[in-house]
Amino acid sequence: MAKQADIQVRFGQRVRELRRDQGYSQEKFAHACGLDRTYVGGIERGERNVALRNIEVIAQTLEITLEELFEGV
Amino acid sequence: MAKQADIQVRFGQRVRELRRDQGYSQEKFAHACGLDRTYVGGIERGERNVALRNIEVIAQTLEITLEELFEGV
Repeated sequence: MAKQADIQVRFGQRVRELRRDQGYSQEKFAHACGLDRTYVGGIERGERNVALRNIEVIAQTLEITLEELFEGV
Repeated sequence: MAKQADIQVRFGQRVRELRRDQGYSQEKFAHACGLDRTYVGGIERGERNVALRNIEVIAQTLEITLEELFEGV
């Protein structure tokens, strides 16, 4: 069984998937979140150890619950 | 409708609930997580903006998915 990818990578992939599903460019999504575009890029590339407050901002921007944000992560 | 409590507070309450359900003292749980007991106390009191890596450690120690950890949070 393959080793599970790093939590930062899995979370970043999930954010990218949900963002694209909702038709946001990375830039528009970052703006909607009130976060820097380079920071959002870093999240999606799995480079950021994102903390609760920004995790909540992402969920709120996507209009989903935290439980939904972490579905399959 | 009441304002939703701070994400740190909601997360801390969830961790406390799950920890107690599994019969861990705060000290034993902190040890099982490899975290400091005062840090875990701070999480449960909503004082910590916990990031992904420690969120994952908590879920793994509780033997639940991240999705389950965030259920209702």
